[in-house]
Amino acid sequence: MLPLITLTTDFGVQDHYVGVLKAVILSIAPGVRMIDISHEIPPQDIMAGAWVVRNSAMLFPPNSIHLVVVDPGVGTQRKPIAMQIKDQIFVGPDNGIFSLIADQYEHHTVELTNSKFWRPNPSNTFHGRDIFAPVAAHLANGTDIHELGKPLESLETYRWAVPISDKDGIQGWIVHIDRFGNLISNIPKEMIEEAGEDPNIKIYVGNTILDRLVNTFGEVTEGEPAAYIGSAGMLEIAINKGDAHEMLGVEKGAQISIVIQK
Amino acid sequence: MLPLITLTTDFGVQDHYVGVLKAVILSIAPGVRMIDISHEIPPQDIMAGAWVVRNSAMLFPPNSIHLVVVDPGVGTQRKPIAMQIKDQIFVGPDNGIFSLIADQYEHHTVELTNSKFWRPNPSNTFHGRDIFAPVAAHLANGTDIHELGKPLESLETYRWAVPISDKDGIQGWIVHIDRFGNLISNIPKEMIEEAGEDPNIKIYVGNTILDRLVNTFGEVTEGEPAAYIGSAGMLEIAINKGDAHEMLGVEKGAQISIVIQK
Amino acid sequence: MLPLITLTTDFGVQDHYVGVLKAVILSIAPGVRMIDISHEIPPQDIMAGAWVVRNSAMLFPPNSIHLVVVDPGVGTQRKPIAMQIKDQIFVGPDNGIFSLIADQYEHHTVELTNSKFWRPNPSNTFHGRDIFAPVAAHLANGTDIHELGKPLESLETYRWAVPISDKDGIQGWIVHIDRFGNLISNIPKEMIEEAGEDPNIKIYVGNTILDRLVNTFGEVTEGEPAAYIGSAGMLEIAINKGDAHEMLGVEKGAQISIVIQK
Repeated sequence: MLPLITLTTDFGVQDHYVGVLKAVILSIAPGVRMIDISHEIPPQDIMAGAWVVRNSAMLFPPNSIHLVVVDPGVGTQRKPIAMQIKDQIFVGPDNGIFSLIADQYEHHTVELTNSKFWRPNPSNTFHGRDIFAPVAAHLANGTDIHELGKPLESLETYRWAVPISDKDGIQGWIVHIDRFGNLISNIPKEMIEEAGEDPNIKIYVGNTILDRLVNTFGEVTEGEPAAYIGSAGMLEIAINKGDAHEMLGVEKGAQISIVIQK
Repeated sequence: MLPLITLTTDFGVQDHYVGVLKAVILSIAPGVRMIDISHEIPPQDIMAGAWVVRNSAMLFPPNSIHLVVVDPGVGTQRKPIAMQIKDQIFVGPDNGIFSLIADQYEHHTVELTNSKFWRPNPSNTFHGRDIFAPVAAHLANGTDIHELGKPLESLETYRWAVPISDKDGIQGWIVHIDRFGNLISNIPKEMIEEAGEDPNIKIYVGNTILDRLVNTFGEVTEGEPAAYIGSAGMLEIAINKGDAHEMLGVEKGAQISIVIQK
Repeated sequence: MLPLITLTTDFGVQDHYVGVLKAVILSIAPGVRMIDISHEIPPQDIMAGAWVVRNSAMLFPPNSIHLVVVDPGVGTQRKPIAMQIKDQIFVGPDNGIFSLIADQYEHHTVELTNSKFWRPNPSNTFHGRDIFAPVAAHLANGTDIHELGKPLESLETYRWAVPISDKDGIQGWIVHIDRFGNLISNIPKEMIEEAGEDPNIKIYVGNTILDRLVNTFGEVTEGEPAAYIGSAGMLEIAINKGDAHEMLGVEKGAQISIVIQK
């Protein structure tokens, strides 16, 4: 089986940057298969990229290589890294983009210091082309991660609010809004298993109050909001046949609370 | 030759959903080739998806599998299906997305009831990941469509206005507006073969009146509107070097009429 | 190794056009590998397409075929062509889309006149499907470029302002604005090697004056503009963690000047 490199960037596709990445990879590893995950991470939005990586990477076949380039600090102190989690390898900048996935799994990280695996004379503004893509291609060709540089003890982390559960209820935040306008919170399903069954549940988000958890947004009347456990395993708010982001006026970072009304 | 799965969704690519689909497919059918057709079908716009499927699927090589997920009713009564037309197989929800293509060809449909070919414990909100992608991958691996479930007699259909031809002329509707702002009608070229040659032809759309059919929009002066038979075999209105949607102010659903002025 | 076709178009991906291109290619060359570079060239923006081609194509492995379709003049006098530069082949309309790359390399061009390599009865509005995609696929199958038609002596060129260097300084123009809002000029690094080192350098663009050249935008304070040699080898203006296009109000075509203040 040909090795596989997935691509996740904030490059967009109206410029030549994605073409350049692919050309560099193919020049080093002509037989590699490249899978586009996203090139539409909002520009420089490290957390949006981290969310996509967290939710997709570990589902890929063994020995997949994940090239992730959202890199506003390119050319500064931030370190280029490769990271192994189980049988998956990640390549990109150490700027928090791997925080959400590294939180969930044991990981082993290497700082990319061995310029033998880079393009000669790397630029200061496009490490995707000059460092990360060549390294991913060499990994696809069978280079061992330990040849790429020296072990790195700790990763940069990006703050992601942790939901709070106490006697008054559960307090979380909207951490992602998807293409459909669905509001995705940081409250995992494990945290609301008990409350989710309680007939006195109230869910507050923005100016909206919901009084039950459903299985899918399609269960409520068209145009009505619904709370349910989404496909990422988190509490989500959607509107059946509508856009919750727009219709409820709730933004990323907004609070979401669950209380049991006595 | 490796089997081939095309992907058409309304997932967008800023989220992880497309990556997840691809990961699930590759995990089951590691050697499959995946071809992105579109992930930018407008959210939940079943007809826009149906239009893309109608105009592209049958051109693919024999034994291609078309995974189509525009699925606002996920988790409700709507049925998951696989459909065979000639040597092409389609997988997706039975919500009208296959209406336009099923209208044109003999088709054979199966309701996906055999959960052996799904991911275990399918969610209520992401059948793309849990049912449709695995089924497409199993088809690519050689599973027969009949193993997937039981025959389904009739498909959900989505109303698409039928153009009317009578002694007063031809009356149709704009059914699609493409990226260039071209206005694509539901009037097929067969319906206007005679009128198209008539020097007294008048074509009315919005506030615009055109008095001839040309071969291509490039034939008229820059900035002028043109009527011609487009690449989908339908009457289209475009503006040479311009955007007809914007410049003529005509929306999807607008009437378009052809009369022979005596 | 399977032959490789890259795709660069202004088709967008909400319509069926990209799917149709890919289907036509695969029907003729079932084993070909297709690499999406961009389908988001702004509609009919020949120069934006030329810029992407210029900056990515020559990095691909030997014998890559580059299908480039930004074709506002489809169906008119403009000629369909195939062009060889070193070991790369380009296929598309002769409308200036290949100007920027042909300026830099010796090239050999053929007008596509041999309809044996086209789809039968080509339309007037979709030569991507009917001429360019089939020709690219036949090239991938091993057809020699000389079989496709007759040699073409000169290409259509598209005016791209040439920067001026005289005793008063260097005068150039913003020729591209990328997804990050970075302002890319037509002043190549070779032209400013000397001035770039001078402590009295002043760079004027819009209402902004910069007084040094840095290595990367990450070197300046967040929110500050930076001038540097970008990854395309041109003088660029960016804002660290910001969008220079938006924040400086500078548009494509704006002047940019370098002077040494005595």
